[in-house]
Amino acid sequence: MPRLVMKFGGTSVANIERIRNVARHVERERAAGADIAVVVSAMAGKTNELVGWCDEAAKNCDRREYDAVISSGEQVTAGLLAIVLQGMGIPARSWQGWQIPILTSNAHGTARIEHVADAAILEGFSKRGEVAVIAGFQGLCKETGRIATLGRGGSDTSAVAVAAAVGADRCDIYTDVDGVYTTDPRIVPKARRLDRVAFEEMLEMASLGAKVLHVRSVEFAMIHKVKTFVRSSFDDPANPRQGTLICDEEDIVESQIVTGIAFSRDEAQITLRQVADHPGVAAAIFMPLAEAGVNVDMIIQVASEDSGTTDMTFTVSAADFDRTRAILEKVKSQIGFESLHGATDVVKISAIGVGMRSHPGVAARAFKALAEKGINIRAITTSEIKFSVLIEAAYTELAVRTLHSLYGLDKA
Amino acid sequence: MPRLVMKFGGTSVANIERIRNVARHVERERAAGADIAVVVSAMAGKTNELVGWCDEAAKNCDRREYDAVISSGEQVTAGLLAIVLQGMGIPARSWQGWQIPILTSNAHGTARIEHVADAAILEGFSKRGEVAVIAGFQGLCKETGRIATLGRGGSDTSAVAVAAAVGADRCDIYTDVDGVYTTDPRIVPKARRLDRVAFEEMLEMASLGAKVLHVRSVEFAMIHKVKTFVRSSFDDPANPRQGTLICDEEDIVESQIVTGIAFSRDEAQITLRQVADHPGVAAAIFMPLAEAGVNVDMIIQVASEDSGTTDMTFTVSAADFDRTRAILEKVKSQIGFESLHGATDVVKISAIGVGMRSHPGVAARAFKALAEKGINIRAITTSEIKFSVLIEAAYTELAVRTLHSLYGLDKA
Repeated sequence: MPRLVMKFGGTSVANIERIRNVARHVERERAAGADIAVVVSAMAGKTNELVGWCDEAAKNCDRREYDAVISSGEQVTAGLLAIVLQGMGIPARSWQGWQIPILTSNAHGTARIEHVADAAILEGFSKRGEVAVIAGFQGLCKETGRIATLGRGGSDTSAVAVAAAVGADRCDIYTDVDGVYTTDPRIVPKARRLDRVAFEEMLEMASLGAKVLHVRSVEFAMIHKVKTFVRSSFDDPANPRQGTLICDEEDIVESQIVTGIAFSRDEAQITLRQVADHPGVAAAIFMPLAEAGVNVDMIIQVASEDSGTTDMTFTVSAADFDRTRAILEKVKSQIGFESLHGATDVVKISAIGVGMRSHPGVAARAFKALAEKGINIRAITTSEIKFSVLIEAAYTELAVRTLHSLYGLDKA
Repeated sequence: MPRLVMKFGGTSVANIERIRNVARHVERERAAGADIAVVVSAMAGKTNELVGWCDEAAKNCDRREYDAVISSGEQVTAGLLAIVLQGMGIPARSWQGWQIPILTSNAHGTARIEHVADAAILEGFSKRGEVAVIAGFQGLCKETGRIATLGRGGSDTSAVAVAAAVGADRCDIYTDVDGVYTTDPRIVPKARRLDRVAFEEMLEMASLGAKVLHVRSVEFAMIHKVKTFVRSSFDDPANPRQGTLICDEEDIVESQIVTGIAFSRDEAQITLRQVADHPGVAAAIFMPLAEAGVNVDMIIQVASEDSGTTDMTFTVSAADFDRTRAILEKVKSQIGFESLHGATDVVKISAIGVGMRSHPGVAARAFKALAEKGINIRAITTSEIKFSVLIEAAYTELAVRTLHSLYGLDKA
């Protein structure tokens, strides 16, 4: 019998009526003959309510207690969906992470799934024809014996991990959009839904700002070769539309050079002026940031050889902006720089496509096209299958549309 | 070191500010040198919200799933209180029923606690000076391996069970009143707070309508000799008032004949007229009710010897009224009665006191006093330490006040 994992996010289970709709999707797949595990998120708004209480209870609270509190949201949804399924005559039971168990690392709040036991779920399939309804976003920390959560969006990872464990033929991620698009359709009305995306491309898209899937879930799917299907939970359950299959590169017949354009507004730019230019200065700047857990992304160094100083520009996530400045001001004397300038009105725009590997000059065409629109590029990074440019935020829409057209992604 | 269990109900933990107040009570007792386990209920309103969703999801839903859903409320409070305590510099950790574990029967929704493991809690006391914050109302069903809840008010029972397991010197039940009163002060302004009540008396009071403690928790306290102290959570934590100690009869020096007056409006009266009076007729009436789980309380049979029939009057809880009538109408031909009359405008008023054992004629004085006020008694039951009368509901206040004065319970 084919096995299927279906994952539904918070807006898809926001109330009992929507949970009933979810149950009808499950009913359809079950009628088609599949054994099914469903992974659910907390009802929309519930996790925020719980996080709000934790924040009110204490600043920087114990992550183990935080996990004990916020994991309750998924537990509730799992029980409710099991009840609704049973009410429709479908055998079902809810599972919490500790019951399966889904074992995790002990990084409470951002734990990694290390093992998913399959025995209990498979026994439910074979002995009782039972749908397993699994609380997403959580597992049992194997060291502390306590509930650990996976961080925001972790239910996607739960779903892919369960799919890998039970050897599912497919993992369907139901979201509030009907698939992965060439870019955000709210910005580019001509954006097209992609039928297929390679794991590597999806990983870059998720990392570079596309919100449709959690980065770690794509990593997990890629490593374990889980065919992951992104589709809409708001379709008529009796007549669902197509979605986007995330799969191996080899399974994509007709591949584009550029598959999609992603953008991230969650960027901040820092420039250190007149840094004393001597060996070890980069380490003096970036080591304290690394030690504080600040992720540095793009780095540009412009030396002015006559003065013996250099200007150093780099980006961090907007959330780390204030912290980064504070750290650098503290070590200013060790580094030896003249002044620190920061900006948060920047955006990182990226083009992604496995076809770049075999087509040189893809990025160069973008630089030219952006220049022709009068858009100044502040920083550039490239890798094998993507390139990113940092520009002024005001040009976001113009730049995304320009690149979307440039690489032939506009729908007819 | 003395050990103390403290239990806080839903209104005492309704929001973070109130949870902070709870933490200050804990802080005071800890500063006085006690090892402490705290048992908490769900935040006020949360259990109702969860129950509402279950009811909306399906009629008569699977109790195991119901338990998975509603047990989340206490889990949240336990985590939040641990966070608040830690924020005050007090070592604390939350415990869910399955972690301790608290093992229960498999009567999901109304499970009984069968065993509380003490090792983990005691290790927290001795090795880390840690307050154990325990989610009330729930445990791990030893047969199904799933979370089982104890039924409404079950957190009281959790607290007493934990107190028995860890050998606590006292179990403090913090409520929204400052102790057990001679009767409901909203009805009798002259009601007095009792310093001490015997377990047996408290058990009768709780069974007969006093809402301050859950019946099963009193049973548990009585069996395991847990000194239980009912007190107010809304007192100034730095300067709490006295409460009521529930203890062994021997520990009460100055005992009254009657300790308290309880009343229950949750009663319904059924009268079967002209029942064919032959051996086995009582069984024909009450067996079908027993099989349906209807609890019959007071029974009066009045035979009219000339007609060969009898009138049978009895009471059931108001919740069982409709069901009882339906069952009896179904077996009417087997029983052979002329007509069925029902009334829900009745109240059961009870006087409780261990002193009744050694003082005959206590109830008789009540019958006389009520008659003098023109109150008609419809049914009477007595036991060793209490008697109850069923009267018309309109006379509730008058009857309660009359008995309260009669037995010298009014405050000076």
